[in-house]
Amino acid sequence: MAETHWKKLGAYLKETQILGSIQNTLYWDQNTGMPKKGAYWRSEQLTYIAKVLHERNSSEEFSNLIQSAKNELADIERNSDNQLFIKDKERNISLLLKEFNRERNLDPKLVESLAKAKSKGYESWQEAKEKSDFKIFLPFFEELVKLRIEEAKQISIKCSPWETLAQPFEPELNLKWLNKIFQPLKETIPGLIRGLNKSQKNQWDLSPESQKKLCSKLLDEFGRDRDLVVVGQSPHPFSITLGPNDFRITTRIVEGEPLSSFLATAHEWGHSIYEQGLPSQSHQWFAWPLGQATSMGIHESQSLFWENRIVKSKSFSKRFFKKFVSAGCSLNNYLELWKSINHLEAGLNRVEADELTYGLHILIRTELEIDLIERGLPAEDIPTEWNKRYGELLGIKPSNDSEGCLQDVHWSEGAFGYFPSYLLGHVISAQISSQMEREIGLIDNLIENGEYQKIIFWLKNNIHKYGRSVNCMELVRAVTNEELSPNYFINHLRSKINDFC
Amino acid sequence: MAETHWKKLGAYLKETQILGSIQNTLYWDQNTGMPKKGAYWRSEQLTYIAKVLHERNSSEEFSNLIQSAKNELADIERNSDNQLFIKDKERNISLLLKEFNRERNLDPKLVESLAKAKSKGYESWQEAKEKSDFKIFLPFFEELVKLRIEEAKQISIKCSPWETLAQPFEPELNLKWLNKIFQPLKETIPGLIRGLNKSQKNQWDLSPESQKKLCSKLLDEFGRDRDLVVVGQSPHPFSITLGPNDFRITTRIVEGEPLSSFLATAHEWGHSIYEQGLPSQSHQWFAWPLGQATSMGIHESQSLFWENRIVKSKSFSKRFFKKFVSAGCSLNNYLELWKSINHLEAGLNRVEADELTYGLHILIRTELEIDLIERGLPAEDIPTEWNKRYGELLGIKPSNDSEGCLQDVHWSEGAFGYFPSYLLGHVISAQISSQMEREIGLIDNLIENGEYQKIIFWLKNNIHKYGRSVNCMELVRAVTNEELSPNYFINHLRSKINDFC
Repeated sequence: MAETHWKKLGAYLKETQILGSIQNTLYWDQNTGMPKKGAYWRSEQLTYIAKVLHERNSSEEFSNLIQSAKNELADIERNSDNQLFIKDKERNISLLLKEFNRERNLDPKLVESLAKAKSKGYESWQEAKEKSDFKIFLPFFEELVKLRIEEAKQISIKCSPWETLAQPFEPELNLKWLNKIFQPLKETIPGLIRGLNKSQKNQWDLSPESQKKLCSKLLDEFGRDRDLVVVGQSPHPFSITLGPNDFRITTRIVEGEPLSSFLATAHEWGHSIYEQGLPSQSHQWFAWPLGQATSMGIHESQSLFWENRIVKSKSFSKRFFKKFVSAGCSLNNYLELWKSINHLEAGLNRVEADELTYGLHILIRTELEIDLIERGLPAEDIPTEWNKRYGELLGIKPSNDSEGCLQDVHWSEGAFGYFPSYLLGHVISAQISSQMEREIGLIDNLIENGEYQKIIFWLKNNIHKYGRSVNCMELVRAVTNEELSPNYFINHLRSKINDFC
Repeated sequence: MAETHWKKLGAYLKETQILGSIQNTLYWDQNTGMPKKGAYWRSEQLTYIAKVLHERNSSEEFSNLIQSAKNELADIERNSDNQLFIKDKERNISLLLKEFNRERNLDPKLVESLAKAKSKGYESWQEAKEKSDFKIFLPFFEELVKLRIEEAKQISIKCSPWETLAQPFEPELNLKWLNKIFQPLKETIPGLIRGLNKSQKNQWDLSPESQKKLCSKLLDEFGRDRDLVVVGQSPHPFSITLGPNDFRITTRIVEGEPLSSFLATAHEWGHSIYEQGLPSQSHQWFAWPLGQATSMGIHESQSLFWENRIVKSKSFSKRFFKKFVSAGCSLNNYLELWKSINHLEAGLNRVEADELTYGLHILIRTELEIDLIERGLPAEDIPTEWNKRYGELLGIKPSNDSEGCLQDVHWSEGAFGYFPSYLLGHVISAQISSQMEREIGLIDNLIENGEYQKIIFWLKNNIHKYGRSVNCMELVRAVTNEELSPNYFINHLRSKINDFC
């Protein structure tokens, strides 16, 4: 069987992937090299690529190609040799159809209104944040909420509106399932925080040059291939894939925060090593859905694993302390380094939050989102509600909107449903780590022996290589033999606190 | 009058420009940041963009848009207010038509054969150069010569084949005109070389870090706007424009050559400041031919001006010497620096050649090209002919093909007609400099007073701002009130030698 239609669909997807990776290259350059004044023209370039991509992803031609490939596949006779392979192919088709229909169901007028509302939302948010005045953002935010509710209704009648908006980030997520994971965290973490001994944050710093060198040594320690992974600097650290063999990560230097660039490097390395392990290189799924990351929760679990389970471990501080000393670090011993890396304290800022308090930031945002989208919470009540919930859960209150409800960019572009991925990442990472330890030994021991390749090998074979052939819930179940549960993460937090006090 | 068609054509050109600038961004990243293993996918991206660009530039739609805009323009009533403006518009249309017809006249089969031949040519040249064996390259080179002669015939019956191939770089160039400029150089320079006192090259070096800092200080001295111009490092220095307000230049660090990165920075700055001065910003000609550089000869004249007239001048060494000392330079005084920058000695390598001997490298290549394309010189004779002419003109002979006829990349991709631009650049720069001095005073004095903005202002108003509204010959005539002549360059060389001995 020639599989003519399958190949044609593959060629179409490859061209889409070429365009997508060009978009990523423009984005990378914009954040790591572009001179400020290049911004206007870069947005023209990005708008053009987005337009072409949208046309390709919603075209009649694409629809026909998927349908023909689907029919062709249905005609292939199954046997024990090709059964699994055909199942993978069917999964590819079903994912393509799902996304295609999502785009197709939308009223083009709504798409246009949304694009404008996002742009205005982002603009007004910037001003509002600068002036610390939610009212500047409010009318545009209200419009965004309205339009995204409308969008959710157009896309799906089976899922609730918030679920529909969250699913591009976390496929097949539903509120009941999410609640089972988040509720125990909400009940547990505030108590853990109250039990903390308050300790002063260690005051020390490193020169930008030293920080850069340490980040580079960290990646060498993890076994980075310099011909495959390039590091840059950007205002916000990120990881991005520009081609099947072209991975980039960035970090940033923050004055007075000697560990910020180091932790960001570990975090982005985790994202990157996931992408590097996807079945996309010299493999039939390159450019197909199955060659992609399965969910943002899984993605975050991978970045958080390297940041929290590796770099924040005691054995890592022990192993790496000498390199910190050579870099000019004034701490006296590795335990001081470890305490510095693990300083636990409730703060107002999500991005700078520690492992323990991070989840509460997410719980507050997730609940507010659901209240906004599904329970009629008026947008104008956000600042009051925000401050109230920070008081309740973290025991602190923002003194203004800028350090409160205006701190994150997501809502300004109407991105609802993204925040839970961050916390799911923590939860997944803990459960997966536990399974990894059962299979290849204690992470502390692996670090002590520098056996990072063993860790990467395990992650690749148990997580990365599946791409989108399974969703997040299925993947966790397959790897750990149980449903995703918050308990591993709670236990990890408890043991860290015990260790720490 | 609504000028509907004119606007439609403008929108079409803008989209083409967006694609072109995306191509440039990919190229920039490829040379300054991309990990080695990203090469394969990058070539997929570049092939895709090239395909789309070719389709746009030779499409029926484009042809119709040009024709409609041309007709619309013909209907506009001329008056004293719009006369000049209409003339510019007509020039735009005529340049667009010229290029469109060039593409249109080519047999698509030939285009395909050429693309393959270029790729094979480049591949075999790399191997041939590595093994220093011209015979590996020969069969592919013969094919390239044959195909490009065929191409020239398909494009034009009015110009000779070599002229046709050279005109994309130097529009309206003809051999008779070129000969009038090159012949006196061929007759004069060898004599000047023979009159040189042989001096030892100064042995000193600077750390890569110091070199980078000096390059940065040089650009600050020239008044670089950091929000507009970004500097990178690449194996071969280049300058590239990624948007109307996005300029990039690169340099490279060569061990044992402390001035290489510095001179390259000055050179690329010259290219960039030309592009920065083109009438492309917030101006009606952005994306139109008139917003582009008029010829490679003019482009080189601008880069060579900053490299040779500014940085190689005595007053520059005087002004900048202290910065070299701070950077760790071991020379004793500015005159030693000046002598080091201006070391004159015939060598085999074009790229590393000094001002005096550079022209001879070009003369040899240009004559060989013309002999190949128009006078039946067999490709297999190139190594012998090359060595013979180096002996005659420079008094030295390559010991192998790698340091001889295989040193440059141009011919490997069938690029004939490019080399003369380099030497034309020297000649144009000298003549323009002379006019500049008549109008705003001696360049030496301007440098001594740090009046670089005065120089840039003059260049912008006399050269840059014209874009392609005039060709190279017309531009030189308009600025200097005479035809382009080799005499200014010869005088400059003589005075440098006098100064030097």
